[in-house]
Amino acid sequence: MNNSQWSDSAHEGEILAGQALDYVRAISPYVTGKPIDAVAREFGLTDILKLASNENPLGASPRATETLRAQNWDLNIYPDGGGYALKAALVQQFDLEPSGIVLGNGSNDLLEMVARAYLAPGRNAVFSAYAFAVYALATQATGAQVKVVPALPPEHPTMPFGADLPSMLRAIDAETHVVFLANPNNPTGTWVDQDALEAFLRAVPPTVLVVLDEAYSEYVDRPDFPDGLMLCRQFPNLVVTRTFSKIYGLAALRVGFAVAHPAVVAMLDRVRQPFNVNHLALIAAEAALQDEDFLAHSRQVNAVGLRFLQQAFQTRGMATIPSLANFITVLVGIPAGIVFDALLREGVIIRPLGGRVDTGGISCHIRITIGTQAQNERVLAALDRVLPQLLGAKGGSS
Amino acid sequence: MNNSQWSDSAHEGEILAGQALDYVRAISPYVTGKPIDAVAREFGLTDILKLASNENPLGASPRATETLRAQNWDLNIYPDGGGYALKAALVQQFDLEPSGIVLGNGSNDLLEMVARAYLAPGRNAVFSAYAFAVYALATQATGAQVKVVPALPPEHPTMPFGADLPSMLRAIDAETHVVFLANPNNPTGTWVDQDALEAFLRAVPPTVLVVLDEAYSEYVDRPDFPDGLMLCRQFPNLVVTRTFSKIYGLAALRVGFAVAHPAVVAMLDRVRQPFNVNHLALIAAEAALQDEDFLAHSRQVNAVGLRFLQQAFQTRGMATIPSLANFITVLVGIPAGIVFDALLREGVIIRPLGGRVDTGGISCHIRITIGTQAQNERVLAALDRVLPQLLGAKGGSS
Repeated sequence: MNNSQWSDSAHEGEILAGQALDYVRAISPYVTGKPIDAVAREFGLTDILKLASNENPLGASPRATETLRAQNWDLNIYPDGGGYALKAALVQQFDLEPSGIVLGNGSNDLLEMVARAYLAPGRNAVFSAYAFAVYALATQATGAQVKVVPALPPEHPTMPFGADLPSMLRAIDAETHVVFLANPNNPTGTWVDQDALEAFLRAVPPTVLVVLDEAYSEYVDRPDFPDGLMLCRQFPNLVVTRTFSKIYGLAALRVGFAVAHPAVVAMLDRVRQPFNVNHLALIAAEAALQDEDFLAHSRQVNAVGLRFLQQAFQTRGMATIPSLANFITVLVGIPAGIVFDALLREGVIIRPLGGRVDTGGISCHIRITIGTQAQNERVLAALDRVLPQLLGAKGGSS
Repeated sequence: MNNSQWSDSAHEGEILAGQALDYVRAISPYVTGKPIDAVAREFGLTDILKLASNENPLGASPRATETLRAQNWDLNIYPDGGGYALKAALVQQFDLEPSGIVLGNGSNDLLEMVARAYLAPGRNAVFSAYAFAVYALATQATGAQVKVVPALPPEHPTMPFGADLPSMLRAIDAETHVVFLANPNNPTGTWVDQDALEAFLRAVPPTVLVVLDEAYSEYVDRPDFPDGLMLCRQFPNLVVTRTFSKIYGLAALRVGFAVAHPAVVAMLDRVRQPFNVNHLALIAAEAALQDEDFLAHSRQVNAVGLRFLQQAFQTRGMATIPSLANFITVLVGIPAGIVFDALLREGVIIRPLGGRVDTGGISCHIRITIGTQAQNERVLAALDRVLPQLLGAKGGSS
């Protein structure tokens, strides 16, 4: 390999980077969770537990995997760019219209389509602090302004760190074209209920798109939890995004869908890559959609695991953020990056919500994906070993 | 299904569409080739031959398919967003550096990344007439201006409808940030040789990115045909895109790669979706890369088929555009859309380069993917049945 290939052209490289759009240059790329392979290599470990990316600990929908295995794939043929069969299955399952559906290469793709069709310099997007990182990235990539609204305070009696809908409403101005809201929210797990969401949607100007990101909504089992797909019928400015990456267990394949008014769908389709969803993803998602046993089992295992971890942390006197999702966010009391490092050496990967310095907010919180009972016990045991040492070291050095 | 879901909100829909960016509203979405299923349904046909999307008629790389079949998929786990293993294989195969590679959800994704990082209102992109449709779509979606340079004239002695590099050079102005050039070009099959391309690259200002789209380059076997991956070492402003959708036979999976200066790669990574390439695509592409027998066989079958069709059309007195790719573009003498319709009723799908009216340029040309010998004979026979009728009808009605 010619290692010096670019060494003489550092100056040209700087010039070329300088030609990129200012607001693109300013982006800090998304940091993905460490792949297990990379961690194994780095630490010489073999038995690694990854509870960092909110993947389904029960695996993929068996119906999806079996259906894929049974197919002739014809990998040389382009996918159906219109997603006819998957859309028909979604229509059937959720009582929708095909003209009100856009398919995405994961829901990330759908969030970006909204940004590309509706945001540009001079416009802005409103969302809560501690929201999904892609809202900021997708907005910044268009040159639009990011308006981050402070979340409810840590001492809030029912929803610490939750989205503050009245404040978000006040943040909407004449340049606001998109509001992003995840329900439940990632990385906190917090949520807004039916009444609060409806009141919010009634108050948002009808010219502002509200993107309701329901990536984790299938895990929720509460009568007062809103169903975005129903609300879409009432609010033409509502865009609901869902994903097959979480409860359906198909993160590897990249497929999500958005439901919106057909006039909005037509705009998103203009910035959609013609073959954005791959063929195997289309087949697997269609099969997973009907895998009711797997969904029910996943929901039940998650509910049990979430309750177990909530109680375990309560017993230990560690505060958790209220969650309805497949993860729990815990205050560890020291900068999250330090806890992440220590757990990594135990072979356990979690998601630190801050770096190695306490910067307030949720920088001393870690997010743990709910696993199987054995996995949940392992992460707890690892924390029980690691935290006293770290807190002791912190105490000792102060 | 609630069919009246949106019927009361047509007005709201118009308002919401009106909120999209002007230049997004102005886009005519890409029209994908008709899926075989759709044609079969529409015409009640069973034995359909699709030579419309330049798919590999020999199927997918067997090594790719076998490797995929042999794997535990773990579909619940996110893909490696950094594409470590595939990049390592590309480094090995093409003598590259990992920091000089970006992976894409098909090369379409890569073309869009360039547009999003380097184009915006007030900037422009230069490309030839009769270029790949995505160059215009990707440019328009950013609000940048499309500068289409007339191609070489139909009567050009060696390269009718080819890219006119000197004219493209003259079209570059202070607002030009990107030049798109496909080699060989789709949908014409025309090409530029080593000397002409090098002279062009030397003359382009070093601040302008040249995107050399080599989607079909693996089919070419000529000593004077340039290798973009070698030229990248010499020209830091060169971005080469390649795809696994064509000769590797993996169109279903969506995977391509770009090679560029690391400083440019860093900009493209900022607008790349973190998990843009799916897990099965990463595995399959890595395996296909080493499937030398399949590549050699595909190249050979294509060369034989291309020669066969070129001679067949010459015998019939029908002009073809010079092609080095896996398709041939033929002047049918009547509007392409009419020929498309007639062939569809014969169960043969090709790509019409115009609609139902002769608008000059290549509107009376059809593009035919080179198939197996039997497939090539079938499309010829269908044309032999259909064209005399259409030409007769045209003669009779005038």
